[in-house]
Amino acid sequence: MKPPALEVDQALSLVLGRAEPLPPIAVQIPDALGLVLAEDVVSRVDSPPFDKALMDGYAVVAADLAEGTAELRVLAELTAGDAPRHRVVPGTATRIMTGAPLPDGADAVVVLEDTECIATGQRPMVRMSHGPVSVGRHILRRGTLVRQGETVLRAGRRLSAVDQGLLAETATSEVRVHPRPHVAVLATGSELVAPGEIAGPGQIPNSNGPMLCGLVAQAGGQPSDLGIGRDDPAELLRLMTRGLESDVLVLSGGVSTGDHDYVPRVLAELGVEQVLHRVRLKPGKPFWFGVAAHRARRTLVFGLPGNPVSCLVCFELFVRPALGRLAGVWNSQLRRRELRLAEPFDHRGDRPTYYPARLRQEAGGDRIEPLAWQGSADLRTIAEADALVLFPAGSRRYGPDEPLTVLMLGRP
Amino acid sequence: MKPPALEVDQALSLVLGRAEPLPPIAVQIPDALGLVLAEDVVSRVDSPPFDKALMDGYAVVAADLAEGTAELRVLAELTAGDAPRHRVVPGTATRIMTGAPLPDGADAVVVLEDTECIATGQRPMVRMSHGPVSVGRHILRRGTLVRQGETVLRAGRRLSAVDQGLLAETATSEVRVHPRPHVAVLATGSELVAPGEIAGPGQIPNSNGPMLCGLVAQAGGQPSDLGIGRDDPAELLRLMTRGLESDVLVLSGGVSTGDHDYVPRVLAELGVEQVLHRVRLKPGKPFWFGVAAHRARRTLVFGLPGNPVSCLVCFELFVRPALGRLAGVWNSQLRRRELRLAEPFDHRGDRPTYYPARLRQEAGGDRIEPLAWQGSADLRTIAEADALVLFPAGSRRYGPDEPLTVLMLGRP
Repeated sequence: MKPPALEVDQALSLVLGRAEPLPPIAVQIPDALGLVLAEDVVSRVDSPPFDKALMDGYAVVAADLAEGTAELRVLAELTAGDAPRHRVVPGTATRIMTGAPLPDGADAVVVLEDTECIATGQRPMVRMSHGPVSVGRHILRRGTLVRQGETVLRAGRRLSAVDQGLLAETATSEVRVHPRPHVAVLATGSELVAPGEIAGPGQIPNSNGPMLCGLVAQAGGQPSDLGIGRDDPAELLRLMTRGLESDVLVLSGGVSTGDHDYVPRVLAELGVEQVLHRVRLKPGKPFWFGVAAHRARRTLVFGLPGNPVSCLVCFELFVRPALGRLAGVWNSQLRRRELRLAEPFDHRGDRPTYYPARLRQEAGGDRIEPLAWQGSADLRTIAEADALVLFPAGSRRYGPDEPLTVLMLGRP
Repeated sequence: MKPPALEVDQALSLVLGRAEPLPPIAVQIPDALGLVLAEDVVSRVDSPPFDKALMDGYAVVAADLAEGTAELRVLAELTAGDAPRHRVVPGTATRIMTGAPLPDGADAVVVLEDTECIATGQRPMVRMSHGPVSVGRHILRRGTLVRQGETVLRAGRRLSAVDQGLLAETATSEVRVHPRPHVAVLATGSELVAPGEIAGPGQIPNSNGPMLCGLVAQAGGQPSDLGIGRDDPAELLRLMTRGLESDVLVLSGGVSTGDHDYVPRVLAELGVEQVLHRVRLKPGKPFWFGVAAHRARRTLVFGLPGNPVSCLVCFELFVRPALGRLAGVWNSQLRRRELRLAEPFDHRGDRPTYYPARLRQEAGGDRIEPLAWQGSADLRTIAEADALVLFPAGSRRYGPDEPLTVLMLGRP
């Protein structure tokens, strides 16, 4: 007797229970975009590393301007990148550019517009007569932004482009992150031909393979396409053996209970432990999940239904959250929202159904609108969907005032 | 006399006026994710390409079951991928699997559970006694989903993973798309050292370079990092000449009006036509934009301020929309929203100011919360921001009931 089909949340928790962040690797900053930090990053330096001029002007001793005017001897000129060589003492100043380090002795910058050059040559002089200046004026003090030894980014964070800049600012050239999971994709079914090949009688193009590779890439994984596996145990064994070299093997088709659904049998032969088979949802019931343990690591194996929409729904519900977890996102979850329908909708079905829908942004808040859909083979309608709206099991009319759970779809 | 600084919207429209979608290229489906179609895609085939069984069972002539029962001779077995060879005539049936093509003569499928095998061997027979069956039952007719010659995806569409599946389904192996723009990134300033190198006195790590490369990648461009250009006209000329080989050259630093701000002068020497210099915003006033025309193509040149936050703000306001346009998105626009503050906020400033802020999702709708920010050098605070909130010029208190314009920041 077949065990009863699991509910979606039970199945997801079994999947996530087997998905652990991949062992960390070291990467250079330019390669870190979108990856998740495996450890806290501590700044190696103060930022700024020195007291820094924020304006073009003169570095002065503020006390010299207590009366509001001064004539000061100009010692040197400092541009960004220069190391100061002269100490500013009372009665002197240094010409300074934005970004240059403040010379010793100086404690304020007077902006260029408030000064007048009164002598050049061997003994240049500057006059200032725009009033007193406060200590620290137009200076960014060393360590104001980040102190050496301070934690700037925490483990678990997905690195953004700004984070890449911040890592550079704190003199970090390499970080430890969880790598992108390697995901092998294999579409099974003797009826399939590669896209662009001429389909013979009874044959159809393999649409799940390209779609799954795209979904994997878009979810932050590294897809590798194993192509098409015909319904032949020996061929499936050979291709699936290759697939088990990846962190994840995603199969489509062959997971029902028909005579030619060899996938679960071949997986058993390969020693892949079955965790679950069949989930109570529509479309997507014949979903299979298992784990292959080899040496120090494991491969997660997902057997998705062959119908393209069922395949997509199972990817969104189970594979995407698992890929997030492998990539280091501990709280990897479904992107669920509670939304109301735009119009009443009659739903019929004996299983919880994920129905393609479009988000409608309205003044009173977002609403959800189920699309005219022709069932689990209808990829074309799903291509226009922003989300899947979940109708519970049972047939009835849903009104626009009932909140429904909506699963947002990933976008490129 | 310097011309007056432009408003942000004037500057953006000058930038977008120079940005045209890059000439289309042909790519294979697996390489098309995230790219924008340059032409409509027309299906080369019907989908499904034949009348297809949606369930495992028997292909029958529906009229045979008019009385609700029948005993039929089984002609053959068809699995997915098989070409039918026997015509189903009254009194006969063909065993058929999900996905297999319906044989000629048959017009319905009776599911396996509703049948009983009553003879095997040379003359196999099946009995059906679960009532009449309607014509077309459990069959997906040829061309129901897509008809040959029908437009399935329109020019201007950014291709998703589901679209990749749909292209495969319609026997399209190659599409014409706008390529990702090549973007050269050059950080200028004698004070800069590469991240990870030891900074000498007066030196700081180059944080803009890595940040800009990350922003470009995240915006769908292909960054190439030209490294650091010291404040030296000959070195800048050499590096910027290389940068002009790309579709876009993004510079940071050297665009102010100080003695060592060589960038506009070197760009003039290279024949780059200045379109604008200085925009009325904070942070980011010394923004420079121009166009280099060479042979059949042009390079857009962006001179961003050297302060990291000013650099980021100008990227988001001007470079990101331009990259979208080059990549084929005609309506490439800023991601602006109207939101209310979470708390009152005192703003001071004589220019329109883009202030880092966090989105707060609340029951009554999203609110925006300005962050404690230390000015245009403070990348650390921007790393926590979801958005920039725009305060108009002038100093006053903003209450939580006033809608403000918010620019959403891109996320990896």
